[in-house]
Amino acid sequence: MEHISKKNIDSMEKIFRLNLINSCTGYKSANLIGSRSDNGIENLAVFSSITHLGSNPSLLGFVVRPTIVPRDTYSNIVSNKFFTVNHINSDDIEDAHHTSARYPAKVSEFEMTKFESEYLKNFPAPFVKSSNIKLACEFLNEYHIKENDTVLIVAKINDIFYRKEYIENDGWLRLDKAKTVAINGLDGYALPKLIERYKYAKPKKNE
Amino acid sequence: MEHISKKNIDSMEKIFRLNLINSCTGYKSANLIGSRSDNGIENLAVFSSITHLGSNPSLLGFVVRPTIVPRDTYSNIVSNKFFTVNHINSDDIEDAHHTSARYPAKVSEFEMTKFESEYLKNFPAPFVKSSNIKLACEFLNEYHIKENDTVLIVAKINDIFYRKEYIENDGWLRLDKAKTVAINGLDGYALPKLIERYKYAKPKKNE
Repeated sequence: MEHISKKNIDSMEKIFRLNLINSCTGYKSANLIGSRSDNGIENLAVFSSITHLGSNPSLLGFVVRPTIVPRDTYSNIVSNKFFTVNHINSDDIEDAHHTSARYPAKVSEFEMTKFESEYLKNFPAPFVKSSNIKLACEFLNEYHIKENDTVLIVAKINDIFYRKEYIENDGWLRLDKAKTVAINGLDGYALPKLIERYKYAKPKKNE
Repeated sequence: MEHISKKNIDSMEKIFRLNLINSCTGYKSANLIGSRSDNGIENLAVFSSITHLGSNPSLLGFVVRPTIVPRDTYSNIVSNKFFTVNHINSDDIEDAHHTSARYPAKVSEFEMTKFESEYLKNFPAPFVKSSNIKLACEFLNEYHIKENDTVLIVAKINDIFYRKEYIENDGWLRLDKAKTVAINGLDGYALPKLIERYKYAKPKKNE
């Protein structure tokens, strides 16, 4: 096997390190966060760090860098509390990736991409119409990660929207039926296919 | 679309909520964490919350529940500082899932599964021999998430091991070449295939 040491990583060329470190932890979730500014401008941005935090209460977390522009998503969420999380499906990856372009705050990514916003059940933040699984979320707290000056956002999952054919009897959403993608590194989009679902693991008896 | 409201989620049957909330945020990374106790017992456990935190310094994060047994991984990492992160590949999913069975701390999951431990470059924690991408990590800090009494572990990625055929010229590891899987919910294992890799997104000029 090839080996890259701590010393190699620390002295590495910046783009090489960005690609390597972003891809070495495995696949990441692929979501678009929809939010609105105080002036009513809709914002849409791709995030690969959204992660399950717990199911009771129903919580998710994601990481932002508030010290680096563009930080529209962060400021919208902290000031307005409500935002949406929209799964990216395989038909939408090119436009989803384009939301990472650095537009000024007054430009809505909904205008610069094919995505259409929609408002559901009076929730104050925009959803992505073409997304197959969508969450209405509420900001709860933020934790400053001092090791690299990032912030972990903790939010409550309030509402879930999905098509009936994705869900199984025990509440599990089968993501490959929704064509939800996964992210490899900063810029690779991959389509997973279910191999197997296992039962709750119990210890083997010693023979 | 189907709609599940906040009220539905809060009053839902426990297992249904576990499956729904664990699957609604998208795919998760699939890794085995290898660690060692003070008594030298090797521990191996599947984790789906490992996420990229930043590339300079090279950091990852993951979530643990130290208040709930089994917590062997957590106590080993906090007391011994060093642990490994090993990608799960599609040939190993059944045994990887079995590491979630609740064995007593004195039982090593390496003995109860087909996985073999190996020690590389004098690193003090065990790697998984059959894993195709492996990280040597060092505990840096922990943050208590008070909203659900979990802990975010922040760690430095010190060393990376991989096969040469996975890496591209710009440092990007192509995960489908390593047969790395992604996790859907608590117990679904999916194999992704790369669709496309995009360039750094730049704003479109207004016409």
